Amino acid sequence: MPKNYLLIPGPTPVPQDVLLEMAREMVNHRGAEFASVLKTSTELLKKVFKTQNDVLILTASGTGGMEAAVANFFSQGDPVLVGICGVFGERFAKICKTYGLNIKTIECEPGKGVEPEVLEKTLKENPDIKGVFLTHNETSTGVTNDLKELAPIVKQNPERLLVVDAVSSLGAIDLPTDELKIDIVVTASQKALETPPGLAMVSVSELAWKYNEKANLPRFYFDLKQAKKFLEEGATPFTPAVSVVFALKKALENILTRGLEENFKRHKFLGRAVREAIKALGVTRLLADERWASDTVTPVVPPENVNPDELRKYIRNKFGVVLAGGQGSLKGKIFRIGHLGYVEPTDILVAISAIEVALENLGYKGLKGKGVQVAEEVFAEYYKN
Amino acid sequence: MPKNYLLIPGPTPVPQDVLLEMAREMVNHRGAEFASVLKTSTELLKKVFKTQNDVLILTASGTGGMEAAVANFFSQGDPVLVGICGVFGERFAKICKTYGLNIKTIECEPGKGVEPEVLEKTLKENPDIKGVFLTHNETSTGVTNDLKELAPIVKQNPERLLVVDAVSSLGAIDLPTDELKIDIVVTASQKALETPPGLAMVSVSELAWKYNEKANLPRFYFDLKQAKKFLEEGATPFTPAVSVVFALKKALENILTRGLEENFKRHKFLGRAVREAIKALGVTRLLADERWASDTVTPVVPPENVNPDELRKYIRNKFGVVLAGGQGSLKGKIFRIGHLGYVEPTDILVAISAIEVALENLGYKGLKGKGVQVAEEVFAEYYKN
Repeated sequence: MPKNYLLIPGPTPVPQDVLLEMAREMVNHRGAEFASVLKTSTELLKKVFKTQNDVLILTASGTGGMEAAVANFFSQGDPVLVGICGVFGERFAKICKTYGLNIKTIECEPGKGVEPEVLEKTLKENPDIKGVFLTHNETSTGVTNDLKELAPIVKQNPERLLVVDAVSSLGAIDLPTDELKIDIVVTASQKALETPPGLAMVSVSELAWKYNEKANLPRFYFDLKQAKKFLEEGATPFTPAVSVVFALKKALENILTRGLEENFKRHKFLGRAVREAIKALGVTRLLADERWASDTVTPVVPPENVNPDELRKYIRNKFGVVLAGGQGSLKGKIFRIGHLGYVEPTDILVAISAIEVALENLGYKGLKGKGVQVAEEVFAEYYKN
Repeated sequence: MPKNYLLIPGPTPVPQDVLLEMAREMVNHRGAEFASVLKTSTELLKKVFKTQNDVLILTASGTGGMEAAVANFFSQGDPVLVGICGVFGERFAKICKTYGLNIKTIECEPGKGVEPEVLEKTLKENPDIKGVFLTHNETSTGVTNDLKELAPIVKQNPERLLVVDAVSSLGAIDLPTDELKIDIVVTASQKALETPPGLAMVSVSELAWKYNEKANLPRFYFDLKQAKKFLEEGATPFTPAVSVVFALKKALENILTRGLEENFKRHKFLGRAVREAIKALGVTRLLADERWASDTVTPVVPPENVNPDELRKYIRNKFGVVLAGGQGSLKGKIFRIGHLGYVEPTDILVAISAIEVALENLGYKGLKGKGVQVAEEVFAEYYKN
């Protein structure tokens, strides 16, 4: 097998020192050592979330965190608005529906984000809406919603809850939770946080806790109030994925030592390099409108006669570069390059090379080095600064 | 710090080869390699569950599996019966209540299990009961319910669902799921399965799937029908704790190579050795009635003037032996010795020695070697066979 270049939008590559934390001897999840690790991880997470709100760690995937964000704060029949830019926006809508909320949606074309004007108009026409669910970075379409534009619109009514899925953005793309007054932010360990999957994290504002008191939806495993209560003692209500918490602490220390702003900058350059390279190839094109183009994942439309899943298979077998396929209605139509978490320029150079060689061998001539060249230009600028 | 002897009823010690699986490089959770690991793990689990039913793996603690066992198969107002022998029976009742089921309970005195006569009488008086929830091994009181006696009583009505929490027993104490016609069995990775925490497993019978079609309780993350659908492709609906699944496969291979019956036998001897030693000390006594005494955890009542939590602290600091405290109403009244999973006679000898020395130093004279001697007698018999 060739070397493994995991370039999907999660799980993402895990640094060696973080992997080794996973192999640590098991400890008592109610003991002093674990309590200290859990409390430290939570404090470090708050820095990444840029919040003073409570941050609670659940043993679950990001979707479990999304479910917690619904079940803890709303009641049957509550009117809510969900911005849908792809599969993960749809997922929020499905969870809300499962729990009997009364949903309005804003549906974006694939590759486009939520327009501020549309959000404002929809909220004006539906003044009873109690909560707005937005996807910060929509992995399926490579779209990043501009929360600096959207959050203040939601908060024109300061009593309205703003819930943000930041699963594939937090730590890679700036999300100033408190500055934007976001009530609930959900993320997960296996994306920009450079940790194996197994943990979801949810931040909860004072306003959200007020909603929590009246919320009548059933919740037990995902009960965030219980989680908050146990966290005071450095514990969780139920046995957590101890090893993943060890790993998370190490990964957060790495990220914060490197610097959050430096992390955002690297992701900006990674995203730009990928996009410029894909455009330079000429035969491939970007799915996402550049206005909303994501710095963590880039969906690519292949040449008309190329099956993206066959292309991915070839690239994986020859180069060890693992790319993601399309999701939902985009299945079989695109491939996606993940560039978040422990991903560096070298990984991108390899991936672009692999795509060039694969397309050359499929008959698309004159591509060799074309994308790599422009990626190098972007990275030259990155290293200059 | 002294060497670590983790003798709590979970998380349990993890063998070195299983820990190293945790440190494996991250892979695509939708790729062929992970699909193969997930499918193999599921097949191996079926052998441990002794079932041909579906077995589904969730990224959650055992409590998440318990919640899945409620939310997937019942509807609001359904009459159910919960056998309560301690904290984990209570937990099943709380989950049922959270979801609006109509609960009857059988409450056992601390240290006693469910009496077959009481179960039979309760079911006769409440013929409308649709589901019965039983704890196989109640960790808080060290009680093992005899499912070979109880299951046939529940199944006098073959259309009634039998749900069993086997979190702290499966793999250590025989539980022939299919032979006993148990519809839903819940367990977790961090107990007898010798794997770090992070995964729950749920087996689902044909009858349970029929209930699933009509069940109206909300479920999304814990939707077992979705899990079954995705498993056909070797995947999970949401990103699983990939590393823990790697570890689980290795641990199950270890257990099945050693032999399930051999595992049950070792746990029987471990349990007997601990109980005989505690009795031999004279100043300590067993909480659980010997009729129901658990082979995976032994709650111990300390001498009257000894604070069990202070005793545990001393033993942990001097000997590195980590014991558990009491839970619920038993908090501060007992300590518990876990002897499940990757625990061997040597660990028990160390733990008994540690308890002897600690009590001696607290003024209880003449204990040195007293418990160890009878434990050795039990182990001599174990190694003779």
